Amino acid sequence: MVPHLTTSLTGPLHELERLVLARRPEIERWFRARFAEHEVPFYSSVDLRNSGFKLAPVDTNLFPGGFNNLNPDFLPLCIHAAMSAIQKLCPDAQKLVLVPENHTRNLFYLQNVATLKRILEGAGLAVRIGSLIPDLAGPTEVEAAGGERLLLEPLKRRGNRVVLDGFDPCAVLLNNDLSGGVPALLQGLEQRVVPPLIAGWSTRRKTQHFTAYEGVAEDFAELLGIDPWFLNPVFSQCGQVNFAEKAGEDCLAANVEEVLAQVREKYDEHGITAAPFAIVKADAGTYGMGIMTVKGVDDVRNLNRKARNKMSVIKEGQPVTEVIIQEGVYTFEDVDGAVAEPVIYMIDQFVVGGFYRVHDARGKDENLNSPGMEFRPLAFETDCHSPDCAGAPGDPPNRFYTYGVVARLATLAAAVEIEEMAMRIDETASVAARA
Amino acid sequence: MVPHLTTSLTGPLHELERLVLARRPEIERWFRARFAEHEVPFYSSVDLRNSGFKLAPVDTNLFPGGFNNLNPDFLPLCIHAAMSAIQKLCPDAQKLVLVPENHTRNLFYLQNVATLKRILEGAGLAVRIGSLIPDLAGPTEVEAAGGERLLLEPLKRRGNRVVLDGFDPCAVLLNNDLSGGVPALLQGLEQRVVPPLIAGWSTRRKTQHFTAYEGVAEDFAELLGIDPWFLNPVFSQCGQVNFAEKAGEDCLAANVEEVLAQVREKYDEHGITAAPFAIVKADAGTYGMGIMTVKGVDDVRNLNRKARNKMSVIKEGQPVTEVIIQEGVYTFEDVDGAVAEPVIYMIDQFVVGGFYRVHDARGKDENLNSPGMEFRPLAFETDCHSPDCAGAPGDPPNRFYTYGVVARLATLAAAVEIEEMAMRIDETASVAARA
Repeated sequence: MVPHLTTSLTGPLHELERLVLARRPEIERWFRARFAEHEVPFYSSVDLRNSGFKLAPVDTNLFPGGFNNLNPDFLPLCIHAAMSAIQKLCPDAQKLVLVPENHTRNLFYLQNVATLKRILEGAGLAVRIGSLIPDLAGPTEVEAAGGERLLLEPLKRRGNRVVLDGFDPCAVLLNNDLSGGVPALLQGLEQRVVPPLIAGWSTRRKTQHFTAYEGVAEDFAELLGIDPWFLNPVFSQCGQVNFAEKAGEDCLAANVEEVLAQVREKYDEHGITAAPFAIVKADAGTYGMGIMTVKGVDDVRNLNRKARNKMSVIKEGQPVTEVIIQEGVYTFEDVDGAVAEPVIYMIDQFVVGGFYRVHDARGKDENLNSPGMEFRPLAFETDCHSPDCAGAPGDPPNRFYTYGVVARLATLAAAVEIEEMAMRIDETASVAARA
Repeated sequence: MVPHLTTSLTGPLHELERLVLARRPEIERWFRARFAEHEVPFYSSVDLRNSGFKLAPVDTNLFPGGFNNLNPDFLPLCIHAAMSAIQKLCPDAQKLVLVPENHTRNLFYLQNVATLKRILEGAGLAVRIGSLIPDLAGPTEVEAAGGERLLLEPLKRRGNRVVLDGFDPCAVLLNNDLSGGVPALLQGLEQRVVPPLIAGWSTRRKTQHFTAYEGVAEDFAELLGIDPWFLNPVFSQCGQVNFAEKAGEDCLAANVEEVLAQVREKYDEHGITAAPFAIVKADAGTYGMGIMTVKGVDDVRNLNRKARNKMSVIKEGQPVTEVIIQEGVYTFEDVDGAVAEPVIYMIDQFVVGGFYRVHDARGKDENLNSPGMEFRPLAFETDCHSPDCAGAPGDPPNRFYTYGVVARLATLAAAVEIEEMAMRIDETASVAARA
């Protein structure tokens, strides 16, 4: 069943959907040209927020961990898209090692790994799972949420290659976001590693992503003739924050004030009466750790110890020193009265499905991806590529097509972001070499 | 429901399926390399015959006319594959004119056109239908089998372009096999035409296709270490036949004898006790016209007037002068007791679905695609890319994967065939220019 969707505001988003549907051939041509110019990430997932008046990405994950949440009917779509990605990235690959996250106690995550393995096998690769778990003595069988059994094997280094016992892969697919840094085991490999190591959270920054996204959204908004703000959340950065030591509070407060002022101006311009809010997140963060909602400067001054502790470390115990202050986008979509956030999955340039992160206990101005929080995944019933052009804007297939468009903008931005990062790293290296 | 499949012989085909499943990563890598070297046809359909001991293509159609018979659940697969094909062939295309066959009284064919239009629109193109019907006065609405309404518009020439009123397309997609020759309207266009005009039946020959297929099947058989005959039907050609005037009978008889002798030898070699037979078909033929089953030389000598008339003309009233004599492959698959022939559909390099041509009134050694013959299309329930490697050979998803492999071999052969034809035509032109 298609979930029952409600949006409280029926103005500008419907206008955006109407525009997107009407201009579809131009939009698709625009994407074809852009995707031909950039190396699209192997896979990605994009968290969207749909406020009725605005539809924007709030996070773009290059190591997506929820393939298990997709509608199983779309597995063939995933397989086709993976075939296309492999054809482009490593056509000669035949054996592939999949490197997952280390948290083997999350049975849902293991189910994601199992699903991913099935997709890659469907695309015709021999796939084994190479684990980075330091104390994994030998091949270890684990059971995923669906009851499927997975064999985790310790990933080993041999010269400039990583191998498993009796398995020398042509390529390495990371499903580990490298939050804890790039392990020596993976450095300087002669095998193709996708996504590239620099896409991990030890080098990636949300602010760099959203800087790239700003450019992409501006181009796309020009194509449609709309204010890019309808697709793009305002943001700012603070580089020297230390929540534990209460350092950088002024920087944070000034940026929060600036972001809220910009949002208020846009709300006024477009006649939106809601109260602006912002989200403060670790710039290198993931997994919904180190995140808070702020509605005014006071919310970042005088933080109590508990709040400071919550903000001061993220995944893998990494300390937070850089934060992004991002315009909060209300979630006005709900499923059975609970707040719902759409998450779109892509492989290569193809939207392969999506689901709602449905949160019974959360407000429409809160982050819905938090550690330890339960959410109900609700798979999209229809795919994101078949709008019914005769239907009204807001009908599920049409809404999903629009979601797919915005998700592709975010993935395109990730491609630009990674290219720019690679160039910066090359420049730094050549400056260092000259010095 | 997956159709109930039975194969009377359980020997070599299961062996072939077992091999194909076991060597999947190598097979997919092999296809990736081949498809990167050749320009894959925009779309194709391949008629397969599965005799239990042999699985072979018997016809490869580059203007497939049965998209309406595919499982509608696979529409998103078709859309993805079309996006991929457009990205490669005409990335800048935004408006496309689809040129169908002229027979507007076949409501099932019109349903195919409607489905194809939906797929292309799904891939983000603006699509209109440009008809070659000579006496089409103006835009004419017709109703397809599913009740969908289609607007046929007369295709017009403007300089080196074809246009419709108020619609100047970037590309032309032919769903018309040009059996009656290439109309002047389509010659020398500056717009991209796919498939190329030389892929039409006014230049194409089945024997050229099966010559190319022979090479492809030999390479592939070498990869698997099997006799290529298990995938490849023996064939021969007669170039100067005139059934109406009883000319070329000796040539035909000699070739029939030769083909049957070769098949008998292979049957003996592999311990097959069935009686060999051959199919005589117009070399430039299509639509199942001008086809007969022969079990011995006597079957082509002393043809009565009715049989000669039946063989002497094909679609669009074209006379038959060249015939292919092809090894007949028994159909040992049946659905509810009726003979069934699998037809596989591809867009770009992707298998997007298939169906059975189920024929209640036909024998296992007869052609199942005949004009005026009713067949029940039975859509494959599962896709062709998700074998269940734990399942036994012969299980539907596994069989379908093997079908997809053989269909891809035929499509690859079509790519080679069209390339070689283009080279021959270029050479002829340059020889003519020098003379």
